[in-house]
Amino acid sequence: MSEQAIAYLTSHRAELLVKLNQFLSIPSVSTDSVHKKDILEAADFIVNYLKDLQFENVEQMDTGGHPLVYAEYNGAGPDAPTVLFYGHYDVQPVDPIDQWDSEPFKPEVRNGRLYARGSSDDKGQVFMHLAVFEAYLKTEGRLPVNVKVCIEGEEEIGSENLYRILHEQSEKFAADFAVISDSGMIAKNQPTILYGLKGFTGIEINVTGPDHDVHSGMYGGAIRNPIMALNHILASMKNIDEVVTVDGFYDDVEPLSDEERKLIDQVQGEDYQEATGVKETASEKGYTAKEHTMARPTFEINGMYGGYQGQGTKTIIPSSATAKITCRLVPGQDPEKVQQLLEDHVKSVAPAGVTVEVVKEKLSAKAYKVEPNHPLIEKAAKSYTKAFGKETVYVRMGGSIPVVEWFEAIYNIPIVLLGFGTPDDRLHSPNESFPLDSFDKGMETLVHYWSEIN
Amino acid sequence: MSEQAIAYLTSHRAELLVKLNQFLSIPSVSTDSVHKKDILEAADFIVNYLKDLQFENVEQMDTGGHPLVYAEYNGAGPDAPTVLFYGHYDVQPVDPIDQWDSEPFKPEVRNGRLYARGSSDDKGQVFMHLAVFEAYLKTEGRLPVNVKVCIEGEEEIGSENLYRILHEQSEKFAADFAVISDSGMIAKNQPTILYGLKGFTGIEINVTGPDHDVHSGMYGGAIRNPIMALNHILASMKNIDEVVTVDGFYDDVEPLSDEERKLIDQVQGEDYQEATGVKETASEKGYTAKEHTMARPTFEINGMYGGYQGQGTKTIIPSSATAKITCRLVPGQDPEKVQQLLEDHVKSVAPAGVTVEVVKEKLSAKAYKVEPNHPLIEKAAKSYTKAFGKETVYVRMGGSIPVVEWFEAIYNIPIVLLGFGTPDDRLHSPNESFPLDSFDKGMETLVHYWSEIN
Repeated sequence: MSEQAIAYLTSHRAELLVKLNQFLSIPSVSTDSVHKKDILEAADFIVNYLKDLQFENVEQMDTGGHPLVYAEYNGAGPDAPTVLFYGHYDVQPVDPIDQWDSEPFKPEVRNGRLYARGSSDDKGQVFMHLAVFEAYLKTEGRLPVNVKVCIEGEEEIGSENLYRILHEQSEKFAADFAVISDSGMIAKNQPTILYGLKGFTGIEINVTGPDHDVHSGMYGGAIRNPIMALNHILASMKNIDEVVTVDGFYDDVEPLSDEERKLIDQVQGEDYQEATGVKETASEKGYTAKEHTMARPTFEINGMYGGYQGQGTKTIIPSSATAKITCRLVPGQDPEKVQQLLEDHVKSVAPAGVTVEVVKEKLSAKAYKVEPNHPLIEKAAKSYTKAFGKETVYVRMGGSIPVVEWFEAIYNIPIVLLGFGTPDDRLHSPNESFPLDSFDKGMETLVHYWSEIN
Repeated sequence: MSEQAIAYLTSHRAELLVKLNQFLSIPSVSTDSVHKKDILEAADFIVNYLKDLQFENVEQMDTGGHPLVYAEYNGAGPDAPTVLFYGHYDVQPVDPIDQWDSEPFKPEVRNGRLYARGSSDDKGQVFMHLAVFEAYLKTEGRLPVNVKVCIEGEEEIGSENLYRILHEQSEKFAADFAVISDSGMIAKNQPTILYGLKGFTGIEINVTGPDHDVHSGMYGGAIRNPIMALNHILASMKNIDEVVTVDGFYDDVEPLSDEERKLIDQVQGEDYQEATGVKETASEKGYTAKEHTMARPTFEINGMYGGYQGQGTKTIIPSSATAKITCRLVPGQDPEKVQQLLEDHVKSVAPAGVTVEVVKEKLSAKAYKVEPNHPLIEKAAKSYTKAFGKETVYVRMGGSIPVVEWFEAIYNIPIVLLGFGTPDDRLHSPNESFPLDSFDKGMETLVHYWSEIN
């Protein structure tokens, strides 16, 4: 029954791309309040699409933050399974804007890739699901499965309100399993099943010294420099061997079995040099780059700033310095506990003469793992292989999707991660893009999957 | 003969302050090319003032950068000494602009202080000299000394072109001694002779990792984080005891004699907590804050930045990180040698997986010391005491004035530092100001000094 739907997607490819470009043209940046209006416009786009498809109970749920789009399709009948489809319509900030080769919110196709913020993470992949729903409904008149749609606008700011809503209205979102397309394949056109995700936590460190920037000639030697103080604090948290030196950080880490190290070793990993331009990898002592990214916790400084940044020299001791830190966690680690360990460490090494404040990021999630041989996973692998004409591989990845942990915690249902991104998509970076190959074959995969399920 | 000149300054105080405010209203920021026009306007202001005073050979010398204002007064006759008067009309940048209580270039008097960028460093003090010249010429019809005026527009960017010009045209600038008012007193209304200044050098460190900001979930564990790499480099350059740990940094440092430590101890130093808001001083192990600021070399990070600085979280490994570093040097240390030691150290500890580049700041100067009992210094002390009605103290300070070293190197003439700033002037910071007390008594000091010289 899937052939007609696939034919529809092929014959309507142009219109669908135009519609996708409308969606990607909305600058729905969730972290910056100036984009509040755009966020609502992006939510409206999805609502209107679902209403056009005759979905039921389509609504924008008030979260207290950015709205969550909810909708139902019950046309598959009581005997068909119900899938909870999750995605997000918000995107990351675009800075540094000057490093984009084309406008982040003016989609442009170059060399078979669609360039736009959100093209891969996650608006592009959300759109593919909507297009596949359309293809089935316009050809078969029905979907093979019942659907509950849950598309939020706060994923890039830690899904601040989603957990509470899922928890409070668990009946409303209840389903037999969940499908999420907010991840990637390990290589272009290499079907990939994600069976493990990392958890996540973070802190911000603010170091304050003099109550204003002071002359380095007059006060150098008399007061502590906040930037240097922050350097000493941070350098004490991870050593040059990429080993985190915060007491207890590795205590609860589930050890990496020889079997899994073999599995990881077999995965044709991506070319880090090609993807990042870095000639030499740097990983936790005793582990390969693939092992560290897939299955070992990480500690990264995402941003740091203090003092003069302009051209030329400004001979000051600055009044403050700030660092933003996030950690990716593995099964066994508790985000809140790790966050506390980080704060305790910072406080324990804070030098005299400056004030050191630690702000705990709300953003937090446990790691996740599912059994690769679960039937719903095997059907996904089969659909991938059918669409891409290639064997599907099973991997764990370093990314974090808090909602995955919450679906498991609240509903205890299987979660299938059908990702179509590629390592070259430059998520969260200038020149984010998505291959049109993934767009076409990804939708074909989804068509196959829904018919497999039924 | 100085009474009439002092009377003139008193009776014309209002007009002089209005004229000073015109000068301070010109945003002559030398480090930022957008202010090129303002720089020229500030130079014109001085040229016009000197022409009104009938100075000879008044000109704006082309330096290749910002112009240098030159002029001569020869009316004191061949038997009178010739003084080389140096100052600068350029100012520091004003950021962070939001921390100013009034517009940096709209002078405003509050609680006996004149608030404006440059009010103390150095436009205010340059203006005092011009006003004193005016007072003498309008009352006595002549100055007690011949004068060569050298007022540059590049002091805050390291006097990039001054040395070459002084060197190439040493005849033109030749004088019996030099007077500079670009420094301060150790406390308000405490006459202070500066007999020692620190030298200066600096480097910028640029650490580059991936060729674009990359997702911390996808690449954390595979590549080196440039910010963390920079943290390790910087933390290895100065320890928590405020001791610089760069090999050879202290090798040529002239040891601090017990006599001088006593002298420093006797100086009623400023209240660091009041001036900076910092409760606890932090100084090189084994030295007091006063000793370190006055007579020991310093190492300060003036600015550092890399990665995300906006609100919220951005889970990236940034493509680069930068730190701006300056050192204040003491007698015995060679700036170029120290600069090389810094670069060698950075290169020696640079970790694998990132590219580390060191940019040597052009800004560089040796430290300076003069004998406190030189007659020209003693006359200065006498004039201070006469004007302020208080004994003059002798101190060394942490600031650097490259031109002092150059005057000594090229002309080998005595250099008298007549500074009238105060510790609360907030040089290089928001809310820079200058006490009107210093304005009045400082000009009176200059009147006394010129008559003492003759």
